Amino acid sequence: MRGKEGHTATLFKKDSLTLDSGATLSPVNVGYETYGTLNTGRTNAVLICHALTGDQYVASTHPITGKPGWWERIVGPGKLLDTDKYFVVCSNVLGSCLGTTGPWEINEVTGQPWGLDFPVITIRDMVKVQAALLDFLGVGSLMAVIGGSMGGMQTLEWLTTYPERLHSAVVLASAARHTAQNIAFHEVGRQAVMADPNWHGGTYYNEDSKPDKGLAVARMTAHITYLSEDALTKKFGRNLQARDAVTFGFDADFQVESYLRYQGSAFVDRFDANSYLYITRAMDYLDIARRYDGRLADAFKAAAHVRCCVISFSSDWLYPTLENKTIAHAMNAAGVPVSFAEIDSPHGHDAFLLDEPEMDQMLDGFIAAAAKSRGLPS
Amino acid sequence: MRGKEGHTATLFKKDSLTLDSGATLSPVNVGYETYGTLNTGRTNAVLICHALTGDQYVASTHPITGKPGWWERIVGPGKLLDTDKYFVVCSNVLGSCLGTTGPWEINEVTGQPWGLDFPVITIRDMVKVQAALLDFLGVGSLMAVIGGSMGGMQTLEWLTTYPERLHSAVVLASAARHTAQNIAFHEVGRQAVMADPNWHGGTYYNEDSKPDKGLAVARMTAHITYLSEDALTKKFGRNLQARDAVTFGFDADFQVESYLRYQGSAFVDRFDANSYLYITRAMDYLDIARRYDGRLADAFKAAAHVRCCVISFSSDWLYPTLENKTIAHAMNAAGVPVSFAEIDSPHGHDAFLLDEPEMDQMLDGFIAAAAKSRGLPS
Repeated sequence: MRGKEGHTATLFKKDSLTLDSGATLSPVNVGYETYGTLNTGRTNAVLICHALTGDQYVASTHPITGKPGWWERIVGPGKLLDTDKYFVVCSNVLGSCLGTTGPWEINEVTGQPWGLDFPVITIRDMVKVQAALLDFLGVGSLMAVIGGSMGGMQTLEWLTTYPERLHSAVVLASAARHTAQNIAFHEVGRQAVMADPNWHGGTYYNEDSKPDKGLAVARMTAHITYLSEDALTKKFGRNLQARDAVTFGFDADFQVESYLRYQGSAFVDRFDANSYLYITRAMDYLDIARRYDGRLADAFKAAAHVRCCVISFSSDWLYPTLENKTIAHAMNAAGVPVSFAEIDSPHGHDAFLLDEPEMDQMLDGFIAAAAKSRGLPS
Repeated sequence: MRGKEGHTATLFKKDSLTLDSGATLSPVNVGYETYGTLNTGRTNAVLICHALTGDQYVASTHPITGKPGWWERIVGPGKLLDTDKYFVVCSNVLGSCLGTTGPWEINEVTGQPWGLDFPVITIRDMVKVQAALLDFLGVGSLMAVIGGSMGGMQTLEWLTTYPERLHSAVVLASAARHTAQNIAFHEVGRQAVMADPNWHGGTYYNEDSKPDKGLAVARMTAHITYLSEDALTKKFGRNLQARDAVTFGFDADFQVESYLRYQGSAFVDRFDANSYLYITRAMDYLDIARRYDGRLADAFKAAAHVRCCVISFSSDWLYPTLENKTIAHAMNAAGVPVSFAEIDSPHGHDAFLLDEPEMDQMLDGFIAAAAKSRGLPS
């Protein structure tokens, strides 16, 4: 689970990173991938921010699962985010487990994995690390920052923290704060991990067993929130799994049970349980307006020059249209030029990762216009 | 967890109960409560069917928690279900753990608790046991059968299985089948229980520890589905729990976390983990139309003489209005006289247990009319 296959940069070696909690962290290793070439004017960089359990392998094979990159549909030569034109960067977020410093990494002070001694982080902390990585890569300002779900939250924190480094920003299926229901689902997941005796208070790294069962339950719960009820009904309904009748037992009689069990067990092979705790916590802590006395518009006041695009999906009940519209309204109120669209989709929250032609069309137009206004060749 | 404080009847001692699975069960003990007196004509009996984790203590103190009955607001002298007029019966469902035979009980063949050797049951099996209890109590036909959530599912099975014993029936916040999403949430709960090493494959009854952590996680997950997002936001929002700022840790910083943890830990004191597995399974197996070649209306054809009332709640996303409307439409198509209403409520699925004046008004009118048409004094 170390992702050594990709690029790694060591940052904050001299000056440590001061986190939102007040704690400091040094050094910070960052796993990242880049696609395409930075032009001589350094004007063609695009940062992609990944979601909760995502990673930097946007358009390259995942080192653990061997699966294609998670956004290969969008990123590549001749594709929507054309790597013949743009220099695309994606880094593993702080606290995660694919090469970026997180609770799985050795704490240089103790010589042991951090575990729960790792400081609790925020979405803004993740963004600060991304900014430092861009410095390291020689990228001053971004043609665009793009993210869905937790990636959208990072995009929002880019707008609050480094507006001067942005030309445009895209927020997909996201929110500017976690609601009580969002926190509730994450808390259930964390409790499932912590209830697993193999979790050992977070010190399982040197043990024979990991808290796989707890993490699988957490993933299963979360996964339900990524799909719409309609999508589950259309995909599975009450279909039985390779049998003609229910077995009157506790095996996976129904396809949806079998599917969820698979989602849970596949996840634990590629993700660290403590990372799951830290990243869900960072999302729960997100409440951008709170830093601005409850006025979200004030968060975007310094970003009035950034072209923004906010997209929601009609069947997303995790970060519903209302939450995305709230962001767009606040941007409007702050004088930020923003395009907003709700895309009619049956696929729930996961729609932002799927083939959604309407989303592609909107993204394509937005990126082309942003590039043009940035003076890039079309 | 044995509820010996209440009444118990031993049924199916001579002729064993044949379950939907084909298995037989004998004897079957049933924990039950009654309120009021059966009149000489035996025409004033009302059966209340309880929900997943409910019990027979409708209007009497719970023997474990010491809390008032779960529907005291509705049931009692002079109340909506007036026990001066009606003989109200409620029994603990088959598979549960408050006095009725379930996986916690001693299997007379082995001398050990049943555990997972207990046969998997269905909602209709629960109803067959209720019918036998009514025989035992000398109740031929019911003035009304009433239930919310899983209680509504039992009410529906009463209509399919013993329509000749019914004068009226009330279904609150329920469904005639479990959807993929319903099954998914239950499966996550079951996996949480089974992931707990203290579950021991269901044989924990003689151990020092029970699978409390797993069961608590299951309850927390389920509890989120009982409340609407709006209700969670209004009740908790992002309010912090007895602190001024987040702690940058994994304690329950937010009130909603503290609330959920309490729900989980309180539940394990009053409920058996295996019972939770069996009853959720029974609900998942529910698909009444399937027994009628997919035509739900056919299920109600023999019940055309039964006055029915179906009520849904606008913010219930567990058994949404659509599922309840499907029931009402099928009843209509079968020639069953049915009143249907969606009640505008912010309280989510749990609304059926709460003070909902519109529901009370509708119930009151329906019960009064049913009693009158039954020839009971008003």
